[in-house]
Amino acid sequence: MTNTNRCILLASRPEGMPDEGNFELVEEGVPEPADGELLIQTIYLSVDPYMRGRMTGVRTYISPFDTGKVLTGGVVGKVVVSRNPNFEKGEMVTGNLPWADYSLSDGKYLRKLDPEAAPVSTALGIAGMPGLTAYFGLLDIGKPQPGETVVISGAAGAVGTVAGQIAKLYGCRVIGIAGSEKKTSYLQQELGFDAVINYRTENMKEAVKQHCPDGVDIYFDNVGGPISDMVMKRINYKARIILCGQISQYNLKQPEQGPRLQGQLIQRSALMQGFIVSDYADRHAEGIKQLGQWLKDGKLQYRENVVNGLENAPQAFIGLFHGENLGKQLVKVADEQ
Amino acid sequence: MTNTNRCILLASRPEGMPDEGNFELVEEGVPEPADGELLIQTIYLSVDPYMRGRMTGVRTYISPFDTGKVLTGGVVGKVVVSRNPNFEKGEMVTGNLPWADYSLSDGKYLRKLDPEAAPVSTALGIAGMPGLTAYFGLLDIGKPQPGETVVISGAAGAVGTVAGQIAKLYGCRVIGIAGSEKKTSYLQQELGFDAVINYRTENMKEAVKQHCPDGVDIYFDNVGGPISDMVMKRINYKARIILCGQISQYNLKQPEQGPRLQGQLIQRSALMQGFIVSDYADRHAEGIKQLGQWLKDGKLQYRENVVNGLENAPQAFIGLFHGENLGKQLVKVADEQ
Repeated sequence: MTNTNRCILLASRPEGMPDEGNFELVEEGVPEPADGELLIQTIYLSVDPYMRGRMTGVRTYISPFDTGKVLTGGVVGKVVVSRNPNFEKGEMVTGNLPWADYSLSDGKYLRKLDPEAAPVSTALGIAGMPGLTAYFGLLDIGKPQPGETVVISGAAGAVGTVAGQIAKLYGCRVIGIAGSEKKTSYLQQELGFDAVINYRTENMKEAVKQHCPDGVDIYFDNVGGPISDMVMKRINYKARIILCGQISQYNLKQPEQGPRLQGQLIQRSALMQGFIVSDYADRHAEGIKQLGQWLKDGKLQYRENVVNGLENAPQAFIGLFHGENLGKQLVKVADEQ
Repeated sequence: MTNTNRCILLASRPEGMPDEGNFELVEEGVPEPADGELLIQTIYLSVDPYMRGRMTGVRTYISPFDTGKVLTGGVVGKVVVSRNPNFEKGEMVTGNLPWADYSLSDGKYLRKLDPEAAPVSTALGIAGMPGLTAYFGLLDIGKPQPGETVVISGAAGAVGTVAGQIAKLYGCRVIGIAGSEKKTSYLQQELGFDAVINYRTENMKEAVKQHCPDGVDIYFDNVGGPISDMVMKRINYKARIILCGQISQYNLKQPEQGPRLQGQLIQRSALMQGFIVSDYADRHAEGIKQLGQWLKDGKLQYRENVVNGLENAPQAFIGLFHGENLGKQLVKVADEQ
């Protein structure tokens, strides 16, 4: 084991699209666990679009990242030293931890992983936060019924791929919106989406009309902006709009204006509900169990886009906003064995 | 009884703000009820903002009015001839009926009124459609809890006055937004609203901040537009935005753009729900009963703004968009006795 711990700091707050200059890699000594603590070696880091919001210095539902401090996010790691009776050396865990080779934890907010049950990386994707986000958003807010039409934006991402597959399990007709032929092919041919729209090459208004001849009952929105405007024009009576993310808006220097939607919501008696996964913290165990079962039964598929090396985490994060990832974007920091 | 029946037609579709030229009064003979029908004399006509939408030739949740045809709306009337065994001459009824001195009905969608229980005019206001709108919107969508902050726009109108009073009955702190000193005084001094904002004379942003120091838990929105934008800036975690009307938008020749609200809804895990009263058709009896009970117990107060004469109905309707009414706007067409 090395004596050097590499960490990635937020060097400066991004204005508009983040770039590598907003991040800095520093080296320090590997920390020593105190009594009750663990030393964890990072195996996988998760990069997620919501982190962009924390890089802006505004308090929202979650406190902002501080500049000059190590970033934190979803991590899968291995216990390399344990001074906590609840954990043993060699165990695999997941939690919200620093972007670093090694980190300390008191174990309180860690979840143990069983590498026999599923690959540990899934704890950051389909069997973790993105999977739970899809599960609770679609089922609790969307309440899908067989035969309903479900449209998903950002459909090829970590959340969208799961939301679409769950909607299919519930007997819905599922239309995915994504930004490349590679993504739309994957959704249609491998995940069984009923129709797909490439928003970069197709006329959104016409495509939504064509693929949703009976209107839109559920819209699972990860992107916002003009793509959503076109979906909103076709919502049905008692439609449910699940607001999960607005990735098209995160890097705007000035907030964008758009059509006022309230009139349309009244005309359709429609619901629009924002949420984050922690709203369902008391039901996460239920969600993890169900997602794990579907995964085991072969009812859910997933893709991971893995870049190697902690030093490449900033680039992987930035890539999220350029549509580079198909499925869950991960950074592999060390080998599992 | 006269032989002449005056009727008001939609002469042309309004473009922007409606004016009297969009309406035409014609005279015809009083119709004869067939077997099973009633002849009803109109006592009160209701004018309501939602009717503006039906004057535009676009199908929404309700079919548009046809030009050259008699308008229809909420009516309280008296049975003057009955050829239907379920109704007797002299009974008072309410229903959706023509803007005319007399009209025919098969009785199917009429509700009988008891003039001893409450003044019959209340069937068009606090104990009718506007009261039910306030009741279901506030309680079913808003789910008010004691101590929560409830903001109501269009607070001095037929719906807003009821919504605010019910919120007070549920132990909420209630802030009303209205457009004149006469209205704000009424809300605060007679209906017991905790605070009021005159949007015509006050800085909305500052006023919302001042009167909602703990943020906004429920926003009952009748107006939309820039007033709502300022309220939306202050919503709390798990806020509920009840979309009842958007009167600021109904007469725009071009749809207005506004801030995109989805990001704010996600940050607050907030709900925005559009509805119309007919969504709750199967629970109207419950609402009518509860509103009637509160009225009898002196727990709800109301105001009516009455203009006399069928010929003045267009002017009364147009006045809704100029903020002329305090409480329910009615047109008295004939004496009750």
